[in-house]
Amino acid sequence: MIQFRDQVRDTDREIVATLTAATGFFSEEEVDIARGLVEEALATGVASGYEFSFAERNEGATPHCVGYVCFGSIPATQSSFDVYWIVVDPAAQRQGIGLGLLKEVERRIRTLGGERIYIDTASRAQYAPTHRFYERAGYERVAFLEDFYAPQDGKLIFCKRVAPRN
Amino acid sequence: MIQFRDQVRDTDREIVATLTAATGFFSEEEVDIARGLVEEALATGVASGYEFSFAERNEGATPHCVGYVCFGSIPATQSSFDVYWIVVDPAAQRQGIGLGLLKEVERRIRTLGGERIYIDTASRAQYAPTHRFYERAGYERVAFLEDFYAPQDGKLIFCKRVAPRN
Repeated sequence: MIQFRDQVRDTDREIVATLTAATGFFSEEEVDIARGLVEEALATGVASGYEFSFAERNEGATPHCVGYVCFGSIPATQSSFDVYWIVVDPAAQRQGIGLGLLKEVERRIRTLGGERIYIDTASRAQYAPTHRFYERAGYERVAFLEDFYAPQDGKLIFCKRVAPRN
Repeated sequence: MIQFRDQVRDTDREIVATLTAATGFFSEEEVDIARGLVEEALATGVASGYEFSFAERNEGATPHCVGYVCFGSIPATQSSFDVYWIVVDPAAQRQGIGLGLLKEVERRIRTLGGERIYIDTASRAQYAPTHRFYERAGYERVAFLEDFYAPQDGKLIFCKRVAPRN
């Protein structure tokens, strides 16, 4: 049974660093960036522009975090949001937790008045399962920036339109 | 005679706010964002990720700022840079200052090892002269995100490849 927590806590710095590192997908620099977003959310709250949802599973008395998503409203847009990070513990993958996080972030974005959700990913083959995951969840490839991250490593932008909840 | 200044000073907060507001192109929120980037550069220097070049013209003893550009390396990329803002005082337009700023930022980005320069702009008709300006300067439209800023106001992404200077 997975529950979602919105509030960011001091201990999430290490949770986020551990989860992102555990995937083997992210460089040390990227793990630092992920942790830095938690720092900003802790330091300045809503003003940071970064919102989080943590997926937790109860193990005995204490909840154990098995994934998280970081998102935010895109400055100077009327109703566009970015999903910056969506990460699931490799030990807890293939259990629908990624899809649960995506549904949860879509719910929160609609509640905040969002109408378009953008997700950037690397285009290289390692990310093909990620691309299929977004496509199955209703996201559409709207842009490809060749060599964006590095030679032969472009950026894909996915987008899903959602109806704001009144 | 235009000269370029890289160093950011306290007085640039107001210079940037005045220039961006004077164009009539930016909302109050966008003017605040522009000023905020100066604040960040003043507070944390290179760590802010924001670099500036100010175009100055000598008027008597004191230089007068007629435009500026704000740019930075894109985190987690090998050699991609974003030009976040390029603004010319309306009273000094049609004198080649915009192109001068673009050449200056390209020079600085090449010196920093940059290989690709990205510029985002709104797609709406008001920006058509801006789009032509980038295209004449060798930038290519590489993406269009429909309705990104607001309904009927999409985002265009322009890109130019440059050779790093050794």
